[in-house]
Amino acid sequence: MLDRFKVPVTEQIRISHDSIWETVFSIFRKMGEPDENAAAAADTLVTADLWGTESHGVSNMVRYYIDYYARGEIKADPQWRTIRETPATAVIDADSGLAIILGKVAMGLAIEKARSVGVGTVSLINAGHSGALGVHAAQAANEGLVGMVMTCGGMRTLPTFGSEGRLSTNPIAFAAPALGEPPFIFDAAMSSVAHNKIRIAQRLGATILPGWLAEDDGTPLMHEHDAPDSDHPLLLPFGGSRSIGSHKGYGLGLMVTIMTTLMPGMRPSMLTGEKGGEHVFTAYDIDAFTDRSLFMSNMGEMLRSLRETPPSPGADRVVYAGLVEHETEVDRRANGVPLHKDVISWFDDICHELSVPPLKRT
Amino acid sequence: MLDRFKVPVTEQIRISHDSIWETVFSIFRKMGEPDENAAAAADTLVTADLWGTESHGVSNMVRYYIDYYARGEIKADPQWRTIRETPATAVIDADSGLAIILGKVAMGLAIEKARSVGVGTVSLINAGHSGALGVHAAQAANEGLVGMVMTCGGMRTLPTFGSEGRLSTNPIAFAAPALGEPPFIFDAAMSSVAHNKIRIAQRLGATILPGWLAEDDGTPLMHEHDAPDSDHPLLLPFGGSRSIGSHKGYGLGLMVTIMTTLMPGMRPSMLTGEKGGEHVFTAYDIDAFTDRSLFMSNMGEMLRSLRETPPSPGADRVVYAGLVEHETEVDRRANGVPLHKDVISWFDDICHELSVPPLKRT
Repeated sequence: MLDRFKVPVTEQIRISHDSIWETVFSIFRKMGEPDENAAAAADTLVTADLWGTESHGVSNMVRYYIDYYARGEIKADPQWRTIRETPATAVIDADSGLAIILGKVAMGLAIEKARSVGVGTVSLINAGHSGALGVHAAQAANEGLVGMVMTCGGMRTLPTFGSEGRLSTNPIAFAAPALGEPPFIFDAAMSSVAHNKIRIAQRLGATILPGWLAEDDGTPLMHEHDAPDSDHPLLLPFGGSRSIGSHKGYGLGLMVTIMTTLMPGMRPSMLTGEKGGEHVFTAYDIDAFTDRSLFMSNMGEMLRSLRETPPSPGADRVVYAGLVEHETEVDRRANGVPLHKDVISWFDDICHELSVPPLKRT
Repeated sequence: MLDRFKVPVTEQIRISHDSIWETVFSIFRKMGEPDENAAAAADTLVTADLWGTESHGVSNMVRYYIDYYARGEIKADPQWRTIRETPATAVIDADSGLAIILGKVAMGLAIEKARSVGVGTVSLINAGHSGALGVHAAQAANEGLVGMVMTCGGMRTLPTFGSEGRLSTNPIAFAAPALGEPPFIFDAAMSSVAHNKIRIAQRLGATILPGWLAEDDGTPLMHEHDAPDSDHPLLLPFGGSRSIGSHKGYGLGLMVTIMTTLMPGMRPSMLTGEKGGEHVFTAYDIDAFTDRSLFMSNMGEMLRSLRETPPSPGADRVVYAGLVEHETEVDRRANGVPLHKDVISWFDDICHELSVPPLKRT
């Protein structure tokens, strides 16, 4: 993430990831989730924080999930079931369970299918939020496969030249393992910016960059400006304006909508007016294409070559998706996860309210 | 394509697509390709011209293909063979055949596998240029499936913050059929601009927009400027600069490199210094996920909703990828394909040289 989204050091308190995991696990148990589900939820959220993806970690999202459970928008202990299946594909109805939990089930099934027939693609429908999508893609890479995940829901992103939101932020995540280098883990919205980042900018008082948001009439805001008051500003497709290529971000976003939502027979938010909640998980068995050891060593060499690319003037170094996240994880596992003091006091309140173990100051 | 890439009306001569097809078919026959291959080549190229994708049609590329055959970089009548296979995957060694020809074979096999197990993913390695990738994705949509294609080769695209090219333009194409609307056919480079478009800008004297190219030291050129003299300028990843999101274009480009090149055991251009030529073709059987009729009607409704989105100030209308291409095809099938007069005289010369039927002026 850009520095503008990081919690300023003076406002930070570092908490061990174990303590955060324990507290978050306990909150999900209180919501009615069985141990396995609560553990999956805590894994997904705490991994995002370990990677420095605060926008999709515990600070931003846990409060929303608690609300969703309370309002019945998501269901604890969901009775998910597979409603259509072939050797390489499946559609799982999530029974309104959270995808931060059921993503593990869906990617697990995709991996099983990939190991059996080469590729596995599993749709998860009627599901809540997926959290940081890269965590689910990484599940495949951690098991030595290549993973691709897409998700959809909402309609605050404009099509190029449009004045009304039609698409969601529609992220794509992709992960591949490498020999001797941290894995490549890509995760990005096909809108210019993830909605959660606007929430963080609002909380931190950060400005919004050119090409991220639009005026109410759809005009791209191509200058830096203050974060809007609105909780639902219009997002531009990735690329910002047509000349920089917003039609590509729009097209990729539509590809994501088709793969996640239309493929398993659902109707997109732009037609239903509802939030939706569809996700698709694909795993590729590397051995179906080549010898995995060859792939792994080529990956390592390629990522090293990228990392060692001479930087352009003014830049410190060239990185690849997953590298900074890996470095951040090493630091945070050792030194704790920095949380904003407002987040800590929110946790103190909710832990008291729910009678669960509070965060431990070290 | 943006207007700047269109042949100016005063420089145009319209030629019927049948005549272009006949001439191009005959040129490929002269190169030593059997009828079936020459027809596939002509289909791929003329379809691009019918869609208005001149950058990947007969004007730009045929001269290069003739060169490649002459220099032995590509082989006529290639003896391609499947070197690894599972129920959902295959790797085809193209024996240095052109992917504008063998794309049909690879996507055909992906479709067969998708119909059998739900998804088919076929790698095509040791292959030449693929032409307009959307044409191959459309092959799946035309048969009622969803298609996704990626291609790779070369290293003139910078990683974000880098000063040396590491990636190719790495396009992604995706196509899905719809009821009552032209299909969604997306095809875009994950660099800011396809290399072929720079060639056209050079020929037409068009300017280059901000965020497309970089200085020799990697600094993004964020102002409009003349087309460079260089045949191999440094391309920026889609997004242009980091703040607009070039790390997303870079990450998507790397995803394409992994899927096309590393997956089937090949090494990327950044490690070999060679051009490479790897492509990957995926087909999804819609019936594996839902009832195809439901998918088709949802697609039609969604594309109509996008098309009818009120435009932002200054914009005529909202379109989706494939719509303008469809409209252009209707016009060009009726009225001929506009070719630049220089292209016509190049065709006259080469047809004379190879003793093949020249383009027919109507």
